[in-house]
Amino acid sequence: MFRHTKMLQFEAKPEKPDAVYAHKLQELIGGAFGEMTVTMQYLFQGWNCRIEGKYKDLIMDTATEEIGHVEMLATMVARLLEGAPATATAESVKDPVMAAVLGGMDPQQAIVAGGGALPADSNGYPWNGKFIVASGNLLADFRANAAAEAQGRLQTARLYNMTDDPGVKAMLKFNLARDTVHQKQWLRAIEELEADGLETDIAPSALFDEEDQVHNNTIWHLSDGPDGNKGGWSTGEDRIEYLMDPKPLGGPGTAPKPDPALYATYSPTQDTVGTIKGKAQSAKNKLS
Amino acid sequence: MFRHTKMLQFEAKPEKPDAVYAHKLQELIGGAFGEMTVTMQYLFQGWNCRIEGKYKDLIMDTATEEIGHVEMLATMVARLLEGAPATATAESVKDPVMAAVLGGMDPQQAIVAGGGALPADSNGYPWNGKFIVASGNLLADFRANAAAEAQGRLQTARLYNMTDDPGVKAMLKFNLARDTVHQKQWLRAIEELEADGLETDIAPSALFDEEDQVHNNTIWHLSDGPDGNKGGWSTGEDRIEYLMDPKPLGGPGTAPKPDPALYATYSPTQDTVGTIKGKAQSAKNKLS
Amino acid sequence: MFRHTKMLQFEAKPEKPDAVYAHKLQELIGGAFGEMTVTMQYLFQGWNCRIEGKYKDLIMDTATEEIGHVEMLATMVARLLEGAPATATAESVKDPVMAAVLGGMDPQQAIVAGGGALPADSNGYPWNGKFIVASGNLLADFRANAAAEAQGRLQTARLYNMTDDPGVKAMLKFNLARDTVHQKQWLRAIEELEADGLETDIAPSALFDEEDQVHNNTIWHLSDGPDGNKGGWSTGEDRIEYLMDPKPLGGPGTAPKPDPALYATYSPTQDTVGTIKGKAQSAKNKLS
Amino acid sequence: MFRHTKMLQFEAKPEKPDAVYAHKLQELIGGAFGEMTVTMQYLFQGWNCRIEGKYKDLIMDTATEEIGHVEMLATMVARLLEGAPATATAESVKDPVMAAVLGGMDPQQAIVAGGGALPADSNGYPWNGKFIVASGNLLADFRANAAAEAQGRLQTARLYNMTDDPGVKAMLKFNLARDTVHQKQWLRAIEELEADGLETDIAPSALFDEEDQVHNNTIWHLSDGPDGNKGGWSTGEDRIEYLMDPKPLGGPGTAPKPDPALYATYSPTQDTVGTIKGKAQSAKNKLS
Amino acid sequence: MFRHTKMLQFEAKPEKPDAVYAHKLQELIGGAFGEMTVTMQYLFQGWNCRIEGKYKDLIMDTATEEIGHVEMLATMVARLLEGAPATATAESVKDPVMAAVLGGMDPQQAIVAGGGALPADSNGYPWNGKFIVASGNLLADFRANAAAEAQGRLQTARLYNMTDDPGVKAMLKFNLARDTVHQKQWLRAIEELEADGLETDIAPSALFDEEDQVHNNTIWHLSDGPDGNKGGWSTGEDRIEYLMDPKPLGGPGTAPKPDPALYATYSPTQDTVGTIKGKAQSAKNKLS
Amino acid sequence: MFRHTKMLQFEAKPEKPDAVYAHKLQELIGGAFGEMTVTMQYLFQGWNCRIEGKYKDLIMDTATEEIGHVEMLATMVARLLEGAPATATAESVKDPVMAAVLGGMDPQQAIVAGGGALPADSNGYPWNGKFIVASGNLLADFRANAAAEAQGRLQTARLYNMTDDPGVKAMLKFNLARDTVHQKQWLRAIEELEADGLETDIAPSALFDEEDQVHNNTIWHLSDGPDGNKGGWSTGEDRIEYLMDPKPLGGPGTAPKPDPALYATYSPTQDTVGTIKGKAQSAKNKLS
Repeated sequence: MFRHTKMLQFEAKPEKPDAVYAHKLQELIGGAFGEMTVTMQYLFQGWNCRIEGKYKDLIMDTATEEIGHVEMLATMVARLLEGAPATATAESVKDPVMAAVLGGMDPQQAIVAGGGALPADSNGYPWNGKFIVASGNLLADFRANAAAEAQGRLQTARLYNMTDDPGVKAMLKFNLARDTVHQKQWLRAIEELEADGLETDIAPSALFDEEDQVHNNTIWHLSDGPDGNKGGWSTGEDRIEYLMDPKPLGGPGTAPKPDPALYATYSPTQDTVGTIKGKAQSAKNKLS
Repeated sequence: MFRHTKMLQFEAKPEKPDAVYAHKLQELIGGAFGEMTVTMQYLFQGWNCRIEGKYKDLIMDTATEEIGHVEMLATMVARLLEGAPATATAESVKDPVMAAVLGGMDPQQAIVAGGGALPADSNGYPWNGKFIVASGNLLADFRANAAAEAQGRLQTARLYNMTDDPGVKAMLKFNLARDTVHQKQWLRAIEELEADGLETDIAPSALFDEEDQVHNNTIWHLSDGPDGNKGGWSTGEDRIEYLMDPKPLGGPGTAPKPDPALYATYSPTQDTVGTIKGKAQSAKNKLS
Repeated sequence: MFRHTKMLQFEAKPEKPDAVYAHKLQELIGGAFGEMTVTMQYLFQGWNCRIEGKYKDLIMDTATEEIGHVEMLATMVARLLEGAPATATAESVKDPVMAAVLGGMDPQQAIVAGGGALPADSNGYPWNGKFIVASGNLLADFRANAAAEAQGRLQTARLYNMTDDPGVKAMLKFNLARDTVHQKQWLRAIEELEADGLETDIAPSALFDEEDQVHNNTIWHLSDGPDGNKGGWSTGEDRIEYLMDPKPLGGPGTAPKPDPALYATYSPTQDTVGTIKGKAQSAKNKLS
Repeated sequence: MFRHTKMLQFEAKPEKPDAVYAHKLQELIGGAFGEMTVTMQYLFQGWNCRIEGKYKDLIMDTATEEIGHVEMLATMVARLLEGAPATATAESVKDPVMAAVLGGMDPQQAIVAGGGALPADSNGYPWNGKFIVASGNLLADFRANAAAEAQGRLQTARLYNMTDDPGVKAMLKFNLARDTVHQKQWLRAIEELEADGLETDIAPSALFDEEDQVHNNTIWHLSDGPDGNKGGWSTGEDRIEYLMDPKPLGGPGTAPKPDPALYATYSPTQDTVGTIKGKAQSAKNKLS
Repeated sequence: MFRHTKMLQFEAKPEKPDAVYAHKLQELIGGAFGEMTVTMQYLFQGWNCRIEGKYKDLIMDTATEEIGHVEMLATMVARLLEGAPATATAESVKDPVMAAVLGGMDPQQAIVAGGGALPADSNGYPWNGKFIVASGNLLADFRANAAAEAQGRLQTARLYNMTDDPGVKAMLKFNLARDTVHQKQWLRAIEELEADGLETDIAPSALFDEEDQVHNNTIWHLSDGPDGNKGGWSTGEDRIEYLMDPKPLGGPGTAPKPDPALYATYSPTQDTVGTIKGKAQSAKNKLS
Repeated sequence: MFRHTKMLQFEAKPEKPDAVYAHKLQELIGGAFGEMTVTMQYLFQGWNCRIEGKYKDLIMDTATEEIGHVEMLATMVARLLEGAPATATAESVKDPVMAAVLGGMDPQQAIVAGGGALPADSNGYPWNGKFIVASGNLLADFRANAAAEAQGRLQTARLYNMTDDPGVKAMLKFNLARDTVHQKQWLRAIEELEADGLETDIAPSALFDEEDQVHNNTIWHLSDGPDGNKGGWSTGEDRIEYLMDPKPLGGPGTAPKPDPALYATYSPTQDTVGTIKGKAQSAKNKLS
């Protein structure tokens, strides 16, 4: 069960409105790596965690914080939109910079949300449940978490460079810091899983013996770039082998004879079509 | 530019058809972490890579391999569907196990694809471009790659346990092995980025100094689980501090006065609604 | 900012597992009127509320409760899936009822979530941000809230009839009760908006005078059903008029002459194509 | 079965083109509460209506009208786009206001539709079937209808304020009027359902006795706003009780022991991970 | 403007209910080539048609018919679901064939629609606006129409083979016939466009002279199949040339130097990374 | 299996950057008829082809080429974005034309892709698997291919007119040419299918005799346009008959009595609601 206080985790006050920036900031709310994603990702991971204690508690602490991040950003967007020329008509706008602002606004922030944030990204695409990862395997999921926090911090950093507003920058500095610590904690938690003997470096550790023991250590050279084998991965005792001219291991990829009731095109008396011209019983004849 | 051979990278021949399994196998084709995802993820990363040489070449080698994995799985699905009772009617099915097979099939594999694979997951949801990550920052992207390969191998391992067919199991053993080496190579490439001085452990490394230096090393205890601070992340010199009773840093989250032309509900003469009953100029009056 | 306790708002313990029911229960988690929808709908409405006090506080109280409902349902799903025959192979299943269970399971609950809930509906379609409504106009939004709670309670009632499990039924009785009070509170809040003089019965109350005063009180009879005008809406002083044989008020719906650079099919010398055969300068001639 | 006349229900002629406005107007065509939504919502409700007579006829009359509204708006968009600088190049545009128009246009109206309307909203997101509600329960559905008409009229009112064009304003005045009468008719039809004894104020009326009779009349105070209990809903004989410091009713939300074949992270010999460091049988050991 | 009669275009009465078939029939309602698609495709094409007369009238006649097809199918689904064991519990089902029926039903037809049709396909994916094509170019659009009718008839034929019910088969025979005539009419209309000199065989006919005149008549042999040049397309006066060993015409595909403010990984002093190990100014150093 | 060379199929070098055009060019990458669509459409058609030889080889040759087209366009987008004012702030932009450029950029190309292409269309909607067609019936699929190439070439032609850049125009001339030959080859392949006796002009040719032989040759006149019967399709020996005043063939479209456990609104004692006022047992009474 959850409780809420009206106090924001960190202040979210722009010095002045900026409707074009409010448009871009949607990416951090409802984008694939926005705050809605980490909120839901950590909540579902926590609820589905099969092991009580430090891991689950860390997940739930972080999940609960992230709901508050959506709150900060939604508040910031509403404030950035204050006084936005949402209803200025093309006709009435004589100032070209104002005209450009009109073009750069998110029409739905005005028409749909009445001057507020949307659960969508900076191109208006709605947040959806496929953005999250919660598999029950903590190694696989913590990797996804570290990756999500990295993408999220990267996008925050890009957006940090797209504004001069001291209020916005102050909040984003806080967000950058939180993304940093979250990246760090998931990386540390991955080490912990191994230290606890729960997982190894390959997720999931099971089935490792059963899998093909040759093909799990070779890189297939299938693009003509000459340098793939010049990385550190090609050196050392545990190097990965680079197959420079790999050959297919399987036979031709063919599909079986179709079910006639599904009407895939097929010539029942011949394997290949190249030779059947003139011989086939014309389906058209059947129609006449 | 690309070239194709009909030979499959690895053999994809089931011992016998299994329409219910063909349904489940869709997850590895068009699911969020299926082969279409890694194909497109690596292709876009490669095309957008800003640094020629070993990294880009490794990406393109792997991307090119993955297209062939979609091919193997699509071929396998078509073969698993051979002779499927796609057009058996509910009426005609007297054998209850066969009836159950009918219920467990993917209707679109028959109706839409004519007995073949779909670019969709095991619930029929189509693959989409939001499944991929290609940010231009190689640390952030390689993390996402290692995470995707981990989820992909996990799903492959689960599916490996859902079949007894030796032909299917043989192909999945190969796939497991490829997922293992791909996990490994992205982890090694992450180390390489640091060794090359291109990125550090936090993505992106830039803006680190500018971000808040207190808030980037604290975990906020916001869920009542008592054990969050008992992990390795809370120990050692570079430990992360656990704030056991954190307080909000910001003020109340309020939205500004709305633009009247957008008709958000608002009482212009009062801050709070709780006290205005009876006083407000009824909007209804204006209508009469 | 939010805080979390591990205690569930209400108990969520099935008497025994039921994987087919766990599949159906997804509708209440990630469906269009599931708990994720009301959570996000109320959160965005609250954050975007322009009037401090009783309305906003009611919204935020309810929003915060709903996050806990997703938690209850996700927990229930994980428990219903305990011991599910997720990895039973078609081969190994001899019991026809068990075979049917296999067909009725959600493949992604096993393959993707490892035996847990998904942020998706009962057909595997992911929850998305278009499911919510948060316009800033409280009358329009409270109507949407009452409607959402009605659909949600209806679906809960249907699902209540699809199980015999006393543990599941106990939780759903609680959910039904919460949906009842939430329906009631939004209906009461709609009355309050009018009592406070903030909104009238038509949303938004503004522009009412400016709109067409004839066409805002007529129903157009455009389907041959004879009884549309036999409802209470056709009687009384404030009856709505039924136009029994309405005529179009506008002229023909035509599209203007196209921009040649966009290549819409058009004959520049003629208005209608019916008469130009043989006269037109063949575009094909230009090619030869 | 349906029939069509070319005459529009109301005139749709702008005084002059306005490509930026044509972009915004997409919201009323293919947005979540646009005309495609009410068209399909009413059609499916009508086709699925279980009770012949006045309700079904009212639904079908309104559904049939709405198809014509999509027609009016699509025609208006095509006319607003006449002569739009769709193919002006960035290079050639020297006039800054014209440059801004280019930025504010919907690229797909030109590239995809050749200067016409799209079945999409003002951010280019396509209309989809999840936007509609048709449950078979008329109370729940009429509530959804009144809510949809309220959101639709709100958006129309916002768009009315975003143009000066007399032709556009004339059409939108008609649309506002139709939205008004449709709101009114669904509200009246809700009263009628109760008068007919078919439904009560809570949807669905069934299961009411069976649900928890305490929890269906309490609001849980879970956010620190002090005013939630100051509304009319907290007064009078049928007041809803405000629980000022509610406690969770359930136990901790835990997930059961996982199926080993699904590889959720789990320590089989311990309940909590916090104490197992050093003891667990390392999965890694199994690999070596 | 549209009008509606309750009479169906053709009878839609199954001999008896069949809930599993009702699930599959969704494909013809809300699938990518279902009746909702052709309805909306033809409506938007008609509204956007730039040339009055025979073409537009044919489009609008067909569009109007298709709305009635959705109606027939939705009615059929509701009837097929009559008496469906929607609320039978897993517990109560002892008959294995009945158990299988439960598994094969669409859960949302019961939970969401109350025993009726959904605007979705046979996997529960909602219909969306991207399924339609309306470009303004009649040749391109009529090709799309003929293609859509072909896919639609193919799916109808497959579904025809999946039922024994005489009532369903009668309706599908009618549908097959309508799909046949619609295929035929669009093929005839394509011929008419050429006869009228409005379009040629390549859409759009414009820009033909300007395009590359060598590369518009060669097939690149990029897959090792030996038979691509054995078709009729490789013979005759207007044959297409088969380039058996084509070489890339462009240089390497490289991306430019990135904007530093976007943090793509890049080494400013070197073109390739392979040689910079040890030399690069470590970004990490900057952090310490 | 696939192989890749870094050399582009054709050169992709703009003369200078143009961020607004890079936004529009997304349509050709990830739009419904962009290069990702034809890539995946042909790959799935090829993998699912049931007839070895010339058809399958032609499909696979073309599929393989199309992957390279995505590559060319993605490379072009990255180059067009070089030096784009992605991080210019609204504040800092004084030049109105530059301001307009900011408004016309795709925010995600900067924030998400770091200055590169996205797997999305020009409105930011992600590519998805529903864009493709691969039914197994070659006639139906080749029609879809010819239609897709026509729409693709049309969009390319429109985009060709939206730029003055000689480098972009050169690449688009090549693309136009490839679209031309691909249109041509699928049209030729359709003729070949008939020549080979594999399919006729109506897809699928099967079931033709069984379908209704009257209704497969009539156009229903359901819109008041007078000219639908003035086309070539209404003349000649194989003319299609125009039914000028068609009557419905079916009875009224009614839905059956609902399952009470699903709570559709229904009056069990009456067929129509119009007469039951006052008589019905009030559901409300049951609650009191």
